[in-house]
Amino acid sequence: MLYRTLDLAYLLEGELVGDPEVVITGLAKIEEAEPGELTFLANPKYEKYLSETRASAVLVSREQLAEGKLLIRVDDPYRCFAKLLSVFYPPEPLVELGVHPAAVLGKDVTIGQGVRIAAGVVIGAHSVIGDDIALYPQVSIGEDVTIGAGSIIRAGVSIRHGVRIGCRVIIQDNAVIGSDGFGFAPTQDGGYEKIPQVGTVIIEDDVEIGAGCTIDRATLGATRIESGAKLDNLIQIAHNVVIGANTVIAAQTGISGSTKIGKNCMIAGQVGFAGHLTLGDRSLVGAQSGVSKSWPDNSKIFGYPAIPLGEELRLQATMRKLPELAKTLDRLVKKVEELSAKRNAQ
Amino acid sequence: MLYRTLDLAYLLEGELVGDPEVVITGLAKIEEAEPGELTFLANPKYEKYLSETRASAVLVSREQLAEGKLLIRVDDPYRCFAKLLSVFYPPEPLVELGVHPAAVLGKDVTIGQGVRIAAGVVIGAHSVIGDDIALYPQVSIGEDVTIGAGSIIRAGVSIRHGVRIGCRVIIQDNAVIGSDGFGFAPTQDGGYEKIPQVGTVIIEDDVEIGAGCTIDRATLGATRIESGAKLDNLIQIAHNVVIGANTVIAAQTGISGSTKIGKNCMIAGQVGFAGHLTLGDRSLVGAQSGVSKSWPDNSKIFGYPAIPLGEELRLQATMRKLPELAKTLDRLVKKVEELSAKRNAQ
Amino acid sequence: MLYRTLDLAYLLEGELVGDPEVVITGLAKIEEAEPGELTFLANPKYEKYLSETRASAVLVSREQLAEGKLLIRVDDPYRCFAKLLSVFYPPEPLVELGVHPAAVLGKDVTIGQGVRIAAGVVIGAHSVIGDDIALYPQVSIGEDVTIGAGSIIRAGVSIRHGVRIGCRVIIQDNAVIGSDGFGFAPTQDGGYEKIPQVGTVIIEDDVEIGAGCTIDRATLGATRIESGAKLDNLIQIAHNVVIGANTVIAAQTGISGSTKIGKNCMIAGQVGFAGHLTLGDRSLVGAQSGVSKSWPDNSKIFGYPAIPLGEELRLQATMRKLPELAKTLDRLVKKVEELSAKRNAQ
Repeated sequence: MLYRTLDLAYLLEGELVGDPEVVITGLAKIEEAEPGELTFLANPKYEKYLSETRASAVLVSREQLAEGKLLIRVDDPYRCFAKLLSVFYPPEPLVELGVHPAAVLGKDVTIGQGVRIAAGVVIGAHSVIGDDIALYPQVSIGEDVTIGAGSIIRAGVSIRHGVRIGCRVIIQDNAVIGSDGFGFAPTQDGGYEKIPQVGTVIIEDDVEIGAGCTIDRATLGATRIESGAKLDNLIQIAHNVVIGANTVIAAQTGISGSTKIGKNCMIAGQVGFAGHLTLGDRSLVGAQSGVSKSWPDNSKIFGYPAIPLGEELRLQATMRKLPELAKTLDRLVKKVEELSAKRNAQ
Repeated sequence: MLYRTLDLAYLLEGELVGDPEVVITGLAKIEEAEPGELTFLANPKYEKYLSETRASAVLVSREQLAEGKLLIRVDDPYRCFAKLLSVFYPPEPLVELGVHPAAVLGKDVTIGQGVRIAAGVVIGAHSVIGDDIALYPQVSIGEDVTIGAGSIIRAGVSIRHGVRIGCRVIIQDNAVIGSDGFGFAPTQDGGYEKIPQVGTVIIEDDVEIGAGCTIDRATLGATRIESGAKLDNLIQIAHNVVIGANTVIAAQTGISGSTKIGKNCMIAGQVGFAGHLTLGDRSLVGAQSGVSKSWPDNSKIFGYPAIPLGEELRLQATMRKLPELAKTLDRLVKKVEELSAKRNAQ
Repeated sequence: MLYRTLDLAYLLEGELVGDPEVVITGLAKIEEAEPGELTFLANPKYEKYLSETRASAVLVSREQLAEGKLLIRVDDPYRCFAKLLSVFYPPEPLVELGVHPAAVLGKDVTIGQGVRIAAGVVIGAHSVIGDDIALYPQVSIGEDVTIGAGSIIRAGVSIRHGVRIGCRVIIQDNAVIGSDGFGFAPTQDGGYEKIPQVGTVIIEDDVEIGAGCTIDRATLGATRIESGAKLDNLIQIAHNVVIGANTVIAAQTGISGSTKIGKNCMIAGQVGFAGHLTLGDRSLVGAQSGVSKSWPDNSKIFGYPAIPLGEELRLQATMRKLPELAKTLDRLVKKVEELSAKRNAQ
């Protein structure tokens, strides 16, 4: 589809600076854009590209200046660009409407209106599949599972028996929801006995779960991902964990059993949380941190073990000087010995 | 099902402190229990909840006191609670008995008695499936695989050709057993040539493998998980690794090629082991550690790189004071310079 | 198959030191080899085994000496051993030739010559499957996917719509190619709105992707794995990342959005890269490093945060002495106070 810059500025409620009749044929990143394309500038790191970009127009913030460039000034260039993505590019084709004959449904499965169930899907007895749901190939759904309307479950996802999934949830490929929690009691012969994991997983509305994530069922009660939380790929959520509403977690982070993460937190990648902790609402955790104790609301923590961000940055700065400090200390020891010797010689 | 406290105390060989006729309707965690439920106290962290819990009865250790609470005193409250889980909650429904018509079996596959093979399972030629095995949907089994009696293989697991799996093994969803080891020889043009990975994986009896784990086949010989070992989710086991009997490994740990982990070890989450190392029996490794050399039996190590636990804790304590130490050193340098200057001025 | 040492030396263009008529029946690692087997010595760590090995012959480098041992001296013992693996052991059985009746192909799918498509494979409309490709059970391929000749896709892999895969690519079990990138824009109510991920993934020729890897599609444009790159298991590649040609990445490493890794790099396991960085060609990154800024060609970096390798090793060495340094500083403070007091007392 083609749009004039005038139309796009109108659509985005933006201020047009430059020619309103330029035709935009597509979107691109600022360093890769070609003539005819529109790009955006949101991350200050990329400001250097603004003068060089070959894009025909640039979405920028309200205050941005750029001589000789065709600009559309908006409140939030990234969100506006995101909006245009859906305008310029057709959405990914969904699974075909209906239940594919090569899907296998157990007894008393309830299927809503407008569902799309692909070949190779297996659904266990008594499960309830809401309206407008898309299940991609090889999704496995256990018994007594409920999935709310509008959810999209990608290929190879396994959802185990009794799990509850809300509306408009997206689960990326090969994620696992409801695997057994990791619980064993030592036996007298040095081995272990499995603790039955009789709880479940509850995933509330508007959650997104990344590819390859593993979310264990609770020993008792429920592991819970609250509404609007977003999990990146390959994240491990242990039994009885709670992830607060609208919390965002980056890839490869792991959260040990019974830990409760607050609402509206941002947790970077490859972070590890010990078990039985609490992280307060609106907290930030830096990448690769190791969180070994509880933290209150609004914490900003970082490091291994995690400490307040400012402290960790000071620590890292000092640490880099450590070999030098050691040398200074060495020299000082000698100097003081000299002084002391001279004094004693007096 | 309902039980009187008297019956439960009898069942657990425990000592009842309080009313024997209270009816228990279910189990719950101490901070979530409601009247009518029984809970337990095993982790001292949770002792504060003992006076507050709304539970009608609490499983505690033999010495535990708690005024006004109905107690059942036992040797091991956690194990007893685990036992009650199976008493109060029915086990998860297994796959239906028999071979589902939508499963695909290759030539000369041998199937034992009492097997449960779900829709979408594919089994390669010459494989042997023991008695009482459950294979969930979309399990893929290669050629010449053997699986021992009583094993449970969850949805989406891939077991590659020639792998040997023992009895009563549990493999959680989407794990991979027998993928190619990561071996390449550099070529003269700067590229790499694949080293054939002609070995296999042997998983002994009573092992549990977590969801999304990847266990590579050996280059030659076997990658081996010894009997009773328990692996949490998303663990990477490289080619020719050996995991000793009854060793427990937490989520997201990775073990590089040819490393041998001893028996009865406990390895925390997100730990990394370099290749060609040995970790002795009964060793403990702290979370997120980076193990870069071999360690003898009974080691307790922690850190990046991993060092003896006590040393690491001292190190971390000192490190936290590092910015302060740097300031002290700074002041001291000035002071010594003054002293020295005065001395020289004498 | 059986071979005489003479024949093997001839095949490998090696120099035979010892009896040319010894019959070799198999291959083994140096510490596990039995009489009748041939082994190799490449890693100096294993040199201690050379005198003890029970192997009947040993592949060694041109200069290696070992009294009383039957040696075949070659330029590259590891590569020669790898070559013999294919000579002694038959290759893993491939999927049967043809399209299994329990595979499901969408409209207008194009299938090349000599393909092997297993039961449970689902291929979306308009996809193009090149010659001599093997698709294992439960592979899910979206719409408009292209896979080049000679590629091998293992069980449970999900390749999402529009992805382009080159020739001779190997993708291990349960990997995901083309899952949605992790992109959300905050909304005014504290939640998040999904940014459409309309880009794709391009995997060039001769790439290998490990089991359980997740490679996200680009927001716009393509996430790209260049020719000859090798990825171990459970690696996370975020949207718009580029991995340079012939770069090797060990297990459980994660690379954040838009980061560009150069060609011929070697990246160890459990490394994390922040987003929007560049790592230059031929760089090395140590295990568990946290890479927080860009680095030029030929960098060797290590640590958390990653710094030049030599610096990090010096830092780690000094750090181990830190508790001792703190004590020295303490003593020194007292000593200087004494000196100062004495001086003032004069």
